[in-house]
Order: sequence, then C-alpha cells, then structure tokens
Amino acid sequence: MPNHESYLREATELALANVAEGGRPYGAVIVRDGEVVARAANRIHATNDPSDHAEMVAIRAASQQLGRPKLDDCIVYASGRPCPMCHAAMRLAGVKQGYFAFTAEEAEAEGLLSAGIYAELCRPLEEQPMQVRHLPLADDPSPYRAWAERKGR
Amino acid sequence: MPNHESYLREATELALANVAEGGRPYGAVIVRDGEVVARAANRIHATNDPSDHAEMVAIRAASQQLGRPKLDDCIVYASGRPCPMCHAAMRLAGVKQGYFAFTAEEAEAEGLLSAGIYAELCRPLEEQPMQVRHLPLADDPSPYRAWAERKGR
Repeated sequence: MPNHESYLREATELALANVAEGGRPYGAVIVRDGEVVARAANRIHATNDPSDHAEMVAIRAASQQLGRPKLDDCIVYASGRPCPMCHAAMRLAGVKQGYFAFTAEEAEAEGLLSAGIYAELCRPLEEQPMQVRHLPLADDPSPYRAWAERKGR
Repeated sequence: MPNHESYLREATELALANVAEGGRPYGAVIVRDGEVVARAANRIHATNDPSDHAEMVAIRAASQQLGRPKLDDCIVYASGRPCPMCHAAMRLAGVKQGYFAFTAEEAEAEGLLSAGIYAELCRPLEEQPMQVRHLPLADDPSPYRAWAERKGR
C-alpha cells in the first residue's frame, strides 16, 4: 500500500523549495509501482512556458522516462489541487488516481489562481470570458475522416 | 480584421498533413497582430508526450517565440475544438479569443476522443472516473503562505 502522505509531503517540499528559488508554490511527484518516476516544480519563472505547471512538467518527464504517453499505472501526487489544465492532462494520460495536499481555496486565500476557474470552464462556451467560437469550414475535408480512413475504419 | 477562416484552413491543413505522416488529426496556428507566431500539429506519435496536442505545442512555441508566458494578445486557431487540457491552457495563458473548425461531436463520430470528457471533468471530483483526492497535511507549512510571504503580502 503506497504511503500517500509521504509522496504528498515530497511534492509539498518541492513546492516550498521552488518558492525559495523565486518560483510558484507548486510541486508534483509521479509514482509507479512504489517508485518515483518523475519529480517537478512549477517552472514558469524559469522557462516562460505557461504550460510548465508542476504536474504538467512531471507528466511530460514521466512519459519520456517510461517511453509511452499512457500513464495509466501511475499515481500523481500534487502539493496543490491540480488546475483544470493539469487535471485534464492527467485524465487524458490515463491516470486513474491522484492526491493533493492543499486546496484551490487555500491558494485563492493567498492571492493565487482563483478557485473560480474550475467553474468558469464548465460554463457553456458563449458564457466564458475566453471567447472560443465554432467556425465551420463547410467545404474542407475533415481531418477526423482522413484519420479514420487511414485507420481503416 | 483578421481572416479567421484562412487561419482555420491553415490549422486544418496541418491536421491533414499530420494524418498523412501517421499522427493524429489536429493542427493549430497562433496569430498575433496579423502574424503567425506558431504553427503545430499533434506530436504524440513522434514524442510519446501525452501533452503534445497541437494547441499545447503551439502555445509552448509561441511563449518561447515571444519570450513570455502571457499570450493575451494572441488568437488561437485550432482545426478541432480544443480538449479541456488545451482549453484551460489557453485560458491560463490569458488568451481571449479562439476559433475551431470541427466539433468534438464530429471527432467522436470518427472514433476519436469522446465529447463526453468535457462534461466528465465538470462533475464533482468524487463522481469522476479519475479519482483525485484531497489529503491534507495538517502539520506541514503551506507553500501558498510561503509564496505570499515572499511576495510581501
């Protein structure tokens, strides 16, 4: 039985160390069969890459470590509740289990990303502050159809 | 006034070319002040990185091109409706506007990622197939508090 608290504590220590280096307060550890596959902290201060959240950096590292995009046998430990981007990335990678130590509300109380973004993204597209619009290209071939044909469907 | 259809067509052509190379049917183009800042197709077949969706690869490239994590003056054009990971990544990068040509339902009809994943992620954590659990570390210092203190809050 994995020691969830111990891995969460490690993720939290990565977050604290990252703050000391001028970064954001997030860390993540990915574990498979009781072995740590990847450790990461938020890297945006160092790379300017807005996707370099701790969980995302760890997911990318784990995929390279394991040589496959599926992480369905991995557990993700995050110091804070994964944001919607990282949550969806975990889900798309097939992760079945994750743990976090600090909540989105605790982050919000210290002036970090609002917990409200989860709810925002669940509203219909036309009601979200980011305007994402469907503009059909009626006469263009569908990439989806092309993909299905290549797969012999 | 930007020619949305022309950029969407370019994103769609990237998707079709990627299928011809054995990849997945997704392309994206990021535009700033009428100039293309980044172009990308889904790269998972080449890199094994589960986060290498077209929009995500383009967001990362645009951030490196511009030397900053904020893409609030950029428009994202995607061949297909951005998945929740990419949608959230766009939002977190400050993107205000995006367009897509093909819907999640059209993807689903050809055997690709189910449109249902959007709805799934909007359900309460305990009702989602991926189990993400809050496990507080009561005695550990909060990385959020440490971050706020470093910022002088």
